[in-house]
Amino acid sequence: MARPSRRDTATGATATTRTVRRGESHDRAAGASAVPAVLDRCRALVRPALEEAVGRLHPWVSEMAAYSFGWCEVGGAPAVASGGKGVRQALAVLGAEAAGEPGRAGVAAAVAVELVHTFSLLHDDIMDGDADRRRRPTVWRAYGTGPAVLAGDALFALAVETLAAQPGGAAGVRTLSVALGDLVRGQADDLLFADRPWTGPERVRPDEYRAMAEHKTGALLGCAAALGAVLGGARPETAAALDRAGRHLGVAFQIVDDVLGIWGDPGVTGKPVHGDLRERKKTFPVLVALGSPMGGRIAALLESGAATDTAAALIEKAGGRAAAMAEARRHLAAVETSLAGAPLATEAAQDLRSLLEYLVRRDV
Amino acid sequence: MARPSRRDTATGATATTRTVRRGESHDRAAGASAVPAVLDRCRALVRPALEEAVGRLHPWVSEMAAYSFGWCEVGGAPAVASGGKGVRQALAVLGAEAAGEPGRAGVAAAVAVELVHTFSLLHDDIMDGDADRRRRPTVWRAYGTGPAVLAGDALFALAVETLAAQPGGAAGVRTLSVALGDLVRGQADDLLFADRPWTGPERVRPDEYRAMAEHKTGALLGCAAALGAVLGGARPETAAALDRAGRHLGVAFQIVDDVLGIWGDPGVTGKPVHGDLRERKKTFPVLVALGSPMGGRIAALLESGAATDTAAALIEKAGGRAAAMAEARRHLAAVETSLAGAPLATEAAQDLRSLLEYLVRRDV
Repeated sequence: MARPSRRDTATGATATTRTVRRGESHDRAAGASAVPAVLDRCRALVRPALEEAVGRLHPWVSEMAAYSFGWCEVGGAPAVASGGKGVRQALAVLGAEAAGEPGRAGVAAAVAVELVHTFSLLHDDIMDGDADRRRRPTVWRAYGTGPAVLAGDALFALAVETLAAQPGGAAGVRTLSVALGDLVRGQADDLLFADRPWTGPERVRPDEYRAMAEHKTGALLGCAAALGAVLGGARPETAAALDRAGRHLGVAFQIVDDVLGIWGDPGVTGKPVHGDLRERKKTFPVLVALGSPMGGRIAALLESGAATDTAAALIEKAGGRAAAMAEARRHLAAVETSLAGAPLATEAAQDLRSLLEYLVRRDV
Repeated sequence: MARPSRRDTATGATATTRTVRRGESHDRAAGASAVPAVLDRCRALVRPALEEAVGRLHPWVSEMAAYSFGWCEVGGAPAVASGGKGVRQALAVLGAEAAGEPGRAGVAAAVAVELVHTFSLLHDDIMDGDADRRRRPTVWRAYGTGPAVLAGDALFALAVETLAAQPGGAAGVRTLSVALGDLVRGQADDLLFADRPWTGPERVRPDEYRAMAEHKTGALLGCAAALGAVLGGARPETAAALDRAGRHLGVAFQIVDDVLGIWGDPGVTGKPVHGDLRERKKTFPVLVALGSPMGGRIAALLESGAATDTAAALIEKAGGRAAAMAEARRHLAAVETSLAGAPLATEAAQDLRSLLEYLVRRDV
């Protein structure tokens, strides 16, 4: 449920192809070692089950779902646009493999988390009033607000049904329901942050932001990584370690996204220079800088909406950028610590690490 | 998710107090034999758990939930308005008792179905653009559309979490997820019916309407009646019989509601004379009449939106009213058949029958 349009740019970014050490294992094609190939492999594994699930929906709702997955255009014609990279489904498959299961043991989990992710995008786009996603009108703009609310509800219900139908699905539903609760909590905080003052005792503190990011972005990533393992019958400690890793990843990802939203290269991010400052977003580097002695001046600049160059320079001078990068690094280290403490299958864990790195290490 | 404002008038109607044969059993106070007393008893049993669950939500979301339950006003001050009658929670408690369990075995089920019902009201009010509910602004009007979407999502997630946390919750989540899928399917059909023509091959047939009503109104009533029994470990046939009874009840209820929406006494229904005709609703009696030789003339009148007196008279003359009442009676008989075929505890089953009758037998 994080700032959706930018997140998609990020997960859809063309990464430098890095070769990752790995060998052979079940469900994996030899040589598919780079991260894009891992994403492709997981997508191919999950797609039939995801299509089958979406195909069980009411035809109208099914079309809205297929549109948001990038499978079709409005009216049902084959899609020209491409969908998301499928990061969450890949985490679910790799999580199952890392817990010693075959990748197919993670498929139901992958379907559930992709459905929940899409539900949250549909509803967040309504809440945030976002008009476009992946260079197409958002579902509420293409089909209307009411239908978009309904389609989100249908995807949510389908995710629960998918998990509940699994053997051992009770534990899976419990894992998902914790993430869902956190997702909503994070979105509520994020919506309320917009109304809080820039300075003074009511201002948003960096630690509140961190909690929001963990809930809004990290909870579903953690759930994705853990859920395949949970359904595969992994030990609770293993699932908990994967969940923790995903949550830290979410915070790191969000904060890197914040840095890119101010200082990122528009040619890479697809976003205007200082876009987040223009939109007066209370992002991590901004919140850190507001707490500095320069906070009052920065607040006045942000409030006016003008001179974003000066504001960006002041935020950097106040230590906002450096603090954000340090914070992101701390959470990446925590990802590593979480994974290192769990008894994971070496090769799958390596794929998982590569994927996590791929998501966060962008040109910042 | 049925035509929400009128349904609330209905479930909130002051019934003629009827004395129901019953004796003593666990969890029940002696003498509380009439239906309003049964509703009160169930509400008192469920309320602490429902409040506890809602209290675990994000404070802002929790306030929106409490507002929609009729517990508080906007801002959190104690409520002046009254909430719903709690029909679904009563069905869950009575369903558990009918399956031979103590009423408290139905409490988690009751909490879950009340949360799902409230979620569906919040989202349906957005989809239908309804401005008022129980003589107060709807949540989207009081708090905004985005926050109302979010609050609905939170209630949905909380319902799933509540069931998943129960021992044997997997079967409960499966039961709920079937109802949720049907709920969304029924709402989708209902939204699409509005765009279908009055006559010709694309017109809405009475059997499509029946399926819509079962999904939109019956599925959650059936789930409510079955869920307490499912969590209490009742035999699948018992739960299935309760579910069937609730579904037939939903169809009967909806069709009686349709008759009241055209010919009901405004002093009792709180709705204007011929309100449903003025709003051009494709209700059961209308659909039957449209299929008669007078269909073309009725369609022209409804399309013009004028002369609703004439339209109502023609619909009655075409057999729409009589067919609707016969259909409602068929479904009420099916409720009875469903209950009679299951091994239910006599006294609780009698309370359940009284409640079902109370909901449908209104002055039509």
